[in-house]
Amino acid sequence: MSDAHPFDEGIALERAGEHVARGRTHAAWRNFIGPFGGLTAAQAMQAILVHPQRLGDPIAFTVNFAAAIEDGEFEIVAQPVRTNRSTQHWTVSILQGSEVKLLGTAMTAARRDTWSADEAVMPQVPPPAQVPLPQARARVEWVNRYEMRFIEGGFPDAWDGSDIGHSLTRVWVRDNPPRPLDFASLTALSDVFFPRIWLRRAQFVPLGTVTMTVYFHAREEQLKATGTGYLLGQTRGQGFGAGYFDHAAQLWNEAGTLLATTTQVYYFKE
Amino acid sequence: MSDAHPFDEGIALERAGEHVARGRTHAAWRNFIGPFGGLTAAQAMQAILVHPQRLGDPIAFTVNFAAAIEDGEFEIVAQPVRTNRSTQHWTVSILQGSEVKLLGTAMTAARRDTWSADEAVMPQVPPPAQVPLPQARARVEWVNRYEMRFIEGGFPDAWDGSDIGHSLTRVWVRDNPPRPLDFASLTALSDVFFPRIWLRRAQFVPLGTVTMTVYFHAREEQLKATGTGYLLGQTRGQGFGAGYFDHAAQLWNEAGTLLATTTQVYYFKE
Repeated sequence: MSDAHPFDEGIALERAGEHVARGRTHAAWRNFIGPFGGLTAAQAMQAILVHPQRLGDPIAFTVNFAAAIEDGEFEIVAQPVRTNRSTQHWTVSILQGSEVKLLGTAMTAARRDTWSADEAVMPQVPPPAQVPLPQARARVEWVNRYEMRFIEGGFPDAWDGSDIGHSLTRVWVRDNPPRPLDFASLTALSDVFFPRIWLRRAQFVPLGTVTMTVYFHAREEQLKATGTGYLLGQTRGQGFGAGYFDHAAQLWNEAGTLLATTTQVYYFKE
Repeated sequence: MSDAHPFDEGIALERAGEHVARGRTHAAWRNFIGPFGGLTAAQAMQAILVHPQRLGDPIAFTVNFAAAIEDGEFEIVAQPVRTNRSTQHWTVSILQGSEVKLLGTAMTAARRDTWSADEAVMPQVPPPAQVPLPQARARVEWVNRYEMRFIEGGFPDAWDGSDIGHSLTRVWVRDNPPRPLDFASLTALSDVFFPRIWLRRAQFVPLGTVTMTVYFHAREEQLKATGTGYLLGQTRGQGFGAGYFDHAAQLWNEAGTLLATTTQVYYFKE
């Protein structure tokens, strides 16, 4: 590895056309099969962020994981399909050869000061320094790219198939090593939660994310105020059945500012 | 109006090409400006549902409202971009002339029986017959297409600008007149919640949905079991600020089965 931060290495793109950027997979971000989906989503977001025609900052972002990304290079096509006075609508896709691996949409907008309120209030939790790091060694490489301090709902102590009846996790998390928060890393951090069914059932079933949506509440000034600090992530499953389940999650900074809300659907096998 | 149910009239499409269907706006579904977004989303979903190449049932659906739909006809382009063994990924857009009015993605899948659990439990509420209909006359036509019985968080009694500190709504809702639930009507019902900022601030600010995501937990058998019964809808805002806010919502049937979870982002002006 070079001196660059592994996340910056991960999202590095080269422009390859008006709406086309080239990226690649990285050993530092490997998951069980293929790359960490959060990095893939962040690469797609980065293609929008570096697009010369971008208007404003991310508001909403949805990515559908259509097929496994093979190790190596890929093309990201990020295109502003509709530009209004203060808003812009995007399509984005990741291609390897002629195969679509990811497709999604995004909305960016020039924001302005208005009335504001965080109705989703950060739960009362001990500060990061009082929450120990997990003892277990990560099973996959990308997990080492994050410092995760589980307040509740960490990995099961025993994978004994007992249904604990809920899947609530609260975790302090930040890049490892620390890196100032930006929209790309907030995208990746929105995918940092391990699958809810593993927690709820204490059972290791094969699965994968099929779709993720991120709503960005943070503006540049909240990203700056967060800096390299921790985010509090909270997530919980909603419905499990017929091969799929979803979760809903929130991310706050240490000051309690809501930065993002996010949802996902996973497929699972049993 | 003909003898057809107004929702069936609303989502009626004619095929106009391999991936193209033609639809139109309807006076019965008018909103303040343009059509009810839930009907527009349902029209886009219907274009997928009637597509001859569709594999399986809807799992996830995201639509971004890119520009106002003018009264009249439009084309819906719904295309299966990637078909796997049991899953299919779609792009969908609505066009008037050369203008993109809506763009989105969907995922459908052949589902199979697995372990299941509804972790998002329906709150304890009085049954529909014990919850009165609102006395106020609807300000917009589409609201008359639904029977809504607000348990809590109905329209403010006084639009006096008082911040009530939360935006929780619980409502029994079904089509008016009743109509057996299907994936298209469940899509529209996912957009039935009035904007959270109106409730929270008791203030009538201009706004509109910019993106909506629906996760379908119901399969055909749960739709059938629901029939023409009521759905319990629950929604709450998460973050408000800088011209945008989001909400997260759940929909159950009277038996307490989770049918859909859904999120939205609105823009607002003040």
